[in-house]
Amino acid sequence: MSASDNIAQADLTTPLLDAIATPADVKALPEESLPQLAREIRARMVAVVSKTGGHLAPSLGVVELTLALCRVFDFPKDKLIWDVGHQAYAWKMLTGRNVRMETLRRFGGVRGFPFPGESPYDAAVGGHAGVALATALGFAAARDARGGKENVIAVVGDASLTNGVSLEALNAVRHTTDRLILVVNDNGMSISRNVGAFARLFARRLTGLRYNRIRAAAEAAGHRLRLNRLKAFYRGFKSIVKSVLLRNRSGIFEDLGLRYIGPIDGHDIPALCDALCAAAAGHGPVVLHIATVKGKGYPPAERNPSKWHGVGPWAAETKPAVAGQTSWSDAFGAALCAQAERNPTIEAITAAMRDGTGLTDFFRRFPAQAHDVGICEEYALAFAAGLAAAGRRPVVALYSTFAQRAIDNLMHDVCLPNLPVVLCLDRAGVVGADGPTHHGLYDLAMLRALPNLEIRVSATRTSLETALAEALKHRGPTVLRYPRGYVPEGPAPRLEGATPGAPMILALGHTVFWAEPIAKSLGLALEPIESVKPLPDFIRGLGARPLITLEDAAASGGFGSAVAEIHRGPLLILGWPDRFVPQGSEAELRAACGLDGAGLRMRIAAFLGGLHGGNHG
Amino acid sequence: MSASDNIAQADLTTPLLDAIATPADVKALPEESLPQLAREIRARMVAVVSKTGGHLAPSLGVVELTLALCRVFDFPKDKLIWDVGHQAYAWKMLTGRNVRMETLRRFGGVRGFPFPGESPYDAAVGGHAGVALATALGFAAARDARGGKENVIAVVGDASLTNGVSLEALNAVRHTTDRLILVVNDNGMSISRNVGAFARLFARRLTGLRYNRIRAAAEAAGHRLRLNRLKAFYRGFKSIVKSVLLRNRSGIFEDLGLRYIGPIDGHDIPALCDALCAAAAGHGPVVLHIATVKGKGYPPAERNPSKWHGVGPWAAETKPAVAGQTSWSDAFGAALCAQAERNPTIEAITAAMRDGTGLTDFFRRFPAQAHDVGICEEYALAFAAGLAAAGRRPVVALYSTFAQRAIDNLMHDVCLPNLPVVLCLDRAGVVGADGPTHHGLYDLAMLRALPNLEIRVSATRTSLETALAEALKHRGPTVLRYPRGYVPEGPAPRLEGATPGAPMILALGHTVFWAEPIAKSLGLALEPIESVKPLPDFIRGLGARPLITLEDAAASGGFGSAVAEIHRGPLLILGWPDRFVPQGSEAELRAACGLDGAGLRMRIAAFLGGLHGGNHG
Repeated sequence: MSASDNIAQADLTTPLLDAIATPADVKALPEESLPQLAREIRARMVAVVSKTGGHLAPSLGVVELTLALCRVFDFPKDKLIWDVGHQAYAWKMLTGRNVRMETLRRFGGVRGFPFPGESPYDAAVGGHAGVALATALGFAAARDARGGKENVIAVVGDASLTNGVSLEALNAVRHTTDRLILVVNDNGMSISRNVGAFARLFARRLTGLRYNRIRAAAEAAGHRLRLNRLKAFYRGFKSIVKSVLLRNRSGIFEDLGLRYIGPIDGHDIPALCDALCAAAAGHGPVVLHIATVKGKGYPPAERNPSKWHGVGPWAAETKPAVAGQTSWSDAFGAALCAQAERNPTIEAITAAMRDGTGLTDFFRRFPAQAHDVGICEEYALAFAAGLAAAGRRPVVALYSTFAQRAIDNLMHDVCLPNLPVVLCLDRAGVVGADGPTHHGLYDLAMLRALPNLEIRVSATRTSLETALAEALKHRGPTVLRYPRGYVPEGPAPRLEGATPGAPMILALGHTVFWAEPIAKSLGLALEPIESVKPLPDFIRGLGARPLITLEDAAASGGFGSAVAEIHRGPLLILGWPDRFVPQGSEAELRAACGLDGAGLRMRIAAFLGGLHGGNHG
Repeated sequence: MSASDNIAQADLTTPLLDAIATPADVKALPEESLPQLAREIRARMVAVVSKTGGHLAPSLGVVELTLALCRVFDFPKDKLIWDVGHQAYAWKMLTGRNVRMETLRRFGGVRGFPFPGESPYDAAVGGHAGVALATALGFAAARDARGGKENVIAVVGDASLTNGVSLEALNAVRHTTDRLILVVNDNGMSISRNVGAFARLFARRLTGLRYNRIRAAAEAAGHRLRLNRLKAFYRGFKSIVKSVLLRNRSGIFEDLGLRYIGPIDGHDIPALCDALCAAAAGHGPVVLHIATVKGKGYPPAERNPSKWHGVGPWAAETKPAVAGQTSWSDAFGAALCAQAERNPTIEAITAAMRDGTGLTDFFRRFPAQAHDVGICEEYALAFAAGLAAAGRRPVVALYSTFAQRAIDNLMHDVCLPNLPVVLCLDRAGVVGADGPTHHGLYDLAMLRALPNLEIRVSATRTSLETALAEALKHRGPTVLRYPRGYVPEGPAPRLEGATPGAPMILALGHTVFWAEPIAKSLGLALEPIESVKPLPDFIRGLGARPLITLEDAAASGGFGSAVAEIHRGPLLILGWPDRFVPQGSEAELRAACGLDGAGLRMRIAAFLGGLHGGNHG
């Protein structure tokens, strides 16, 4: 174990980093200082993430790339678009946000992903995988229309490249623009593992030797590189070593009309600068293929980049996870394994989220029935449709926000032929620090109108197990929805109310635990609701009884909306407001949106007061 | 002009076709009869479609392929999945539905697309492009898990192959199964034109000579082909001519782990049979690349396959289109051209639906600002996000049902950064003969919860023009929604009601014209509503007034649901029911679902009667 294991505890003087306010400051540094700056960035990154949690391994892997981009390009005039922006911590540090990095992923703080509203240096939102190249093509087409000169650069991980949107964009590059730089950051792994034939096609391992040899040759030939002589360099370079360095080792990119440069050692700053210059100087869209090590520079993360992909805080002063509690994901995974022991037709499908969706154990125990399809949510559902039509029992586990990609497949491939596919929406509700790109708030509204679909929202572990068991017997499609965090073990509370006909809270899924203390103290009836579609029959029988609906979803279009459609008595719909919910702890977000104990109590009290005054609604 | 121009009028004795009840009957025919059977199928197809309308050119192109598939495989044990099943008319004729073909695309009749509920021969729904290969992989994986032996065949058009779901599936083939046949039906055009680099990569022209030469060689070598000697044939074939015939002319497929056979003349039945046998007999997943002529055998369609892709009935006895009326699509296209004359930053984007979305004229007049991205709805939205972020004014025109593919991009790439993208949802509402895969009924429910989004639904041409103009000035994203059919030119009717405070119909978009006669006769107030988000302010001020909402969308989760969330007085929500709406004329479908004049009147009268009885809701 090397000394840098203790990088978090190391001396955190970062004099070079502290002096950098914009990427132009990176340009002004002597080349010899860059390795030291990279070390400072990594030390700071580990120190910050040890306290805030975050996507450490991806961001550690692209420190040199980020520096090289700052050296070569002129941001924010040039446009840089990160695909899945959890690589962007170094970028944030070098674009004026270093002083605020302690607030990373915290309420009101620096976002964990690029966000245009946060900084003029962030050209696009980078929370969902696969869209950077498409968005970059939009920037490039706009520039071409305007006759602009700026560079547009998309940085895309190898795993994102096999997503359907990326592939659609690759298809479009050549007929859209002559000037675009696609940097493929090849660390050879997605969150779980890299999957598929395109991945193999795109993937090339670094041969560092090759580049170094060429570079030595170029230097010997008098082409000592200077940033102010880039074009000259490129011209000379081309004539001397193009046939070696630019030799297309991945024919598919050239087949697709992109010039190919690579592979380049993604941790060699001069090599990266040279390659980026070559990319910018040549004609036609270009792919620059770099090889990086995920977790680079922090040995624990290098050794286990999957574990260190996204981590919670681990610094001593933060409180540890509660021992003995089970996450919803793990509860789902265990329940599915239990079902699979009895039912050999079960097939589990995930989209590069094996660990995150609790399926690690299933994959280990039932490998022949386990499918990680990569970041391909649409494919996951269409594939499941085929499995179901052929008599298998597919269970697709996705994060709610990513499942938005597959709405059409759910409708067309699954619901229309009424196939028994179980779609499990993990991380449904607010997810905390990952923020608005990752909250799962719109699923109920998007899914509720689909015919043939049942939508179940569990409040406890037992009810999740029951819902899964029933979904696996159901003839048609079922969505199971559950949040991030720990699963309540006990039974869901139910209260009669202080008086017969007392106003009733209908609390969806785990929000019954939010509602319980308020219902108790206000003397309200409380019913846990675990199905949005169909709605429980008793709701239709509630006549004009005052109702309060509560859900961990957008208030518009979801469960409360479904109740509103059938209930004409007084009704208060409580859920997340009609604006994007920022990042923060669940407690902070609930407080900010009137869904914490105090907020709920106040709003419910006001509603009840309005009833007595005869002014309901 | 050849005699076959008059194929529809030709003698329609189809003795061979009439004798076929199942694909096994095709197998039993002598090989010499097949060309005659193909002619009969085409004649019948043209005769039927001349009366019903339908997707003529695609289905004409695959008659020989369909016959060859029936000859070689054993359906329904083997599974055939058509991508965009509008190629499937011959398939329907040969699988027991010929006698019912006059009902094609009619209410209660044979569906225009494969549908499992219609026939055991239809393995999957085939209405949206790009999912056949993914679904086929599901069938194949299920077979492998079961240890089954059946063949799984996906037939995918070259245009569908560049869709993201297809590409995700291509990525997955090799690690999913060893046995799958992908037939790429290469007619060199999508509905508009074929787009992009993958398309170029995948596309290969037929060299009929090559195949014939090889076939002659194989025959000379004693390998006269018999269906009962397929394996022997294939083994011998391999050793003799594999290096020529199976020579991979499209390296990408082999790079992706698929064996490549082709190109094959898609109108040469013996060649197709041989190739299908070779595909079935070999090891590993295989792509069979066939070249067909869209519209084959019907000269008007061959000459202009785009025009004949999907056509209305043209037989003499059907009534002609109403002269002087403009479709919503054309009204939109004209309005966009008018805007573009004044605003050079407008960029029009469509996904292989240039004509269908009314953009033909825009593409002609403003080619530099016009983008047909192929069947890539997700890319269309992400690309638009980049254009908008860079200062352009992108207008994306999609059919409502296909826009379901891009919900996540709308949320993540457009709404979250609040970019001024205009998304125009054409064919929103029921679309008639294309049926449940093509009705645009779920868009309002899916979109209404998205923050920052405005949703406008126009009732007339003038209001569409105004909505577009305002959307192009708006700082954030706007959805414009309009139906299939002719656009009303006059002002939207508005009625005060017979008495002050009379129950009021809130009619969304063009449904105001459905509501007008009923409101008049019942003395109700009538308000045209042209914005679902935000809702018009006046609705909040209606207190306990009885309201009736009406929309050409699913009643669950849409406009009525939005009103239900804020209105606590009596409310009747009228829209399409919570089941998939079948095909048929708009009149038939409205009658079947209680949305025609009689149905609306009856339901509204019952609602009003309940009010007087004090029993509302």
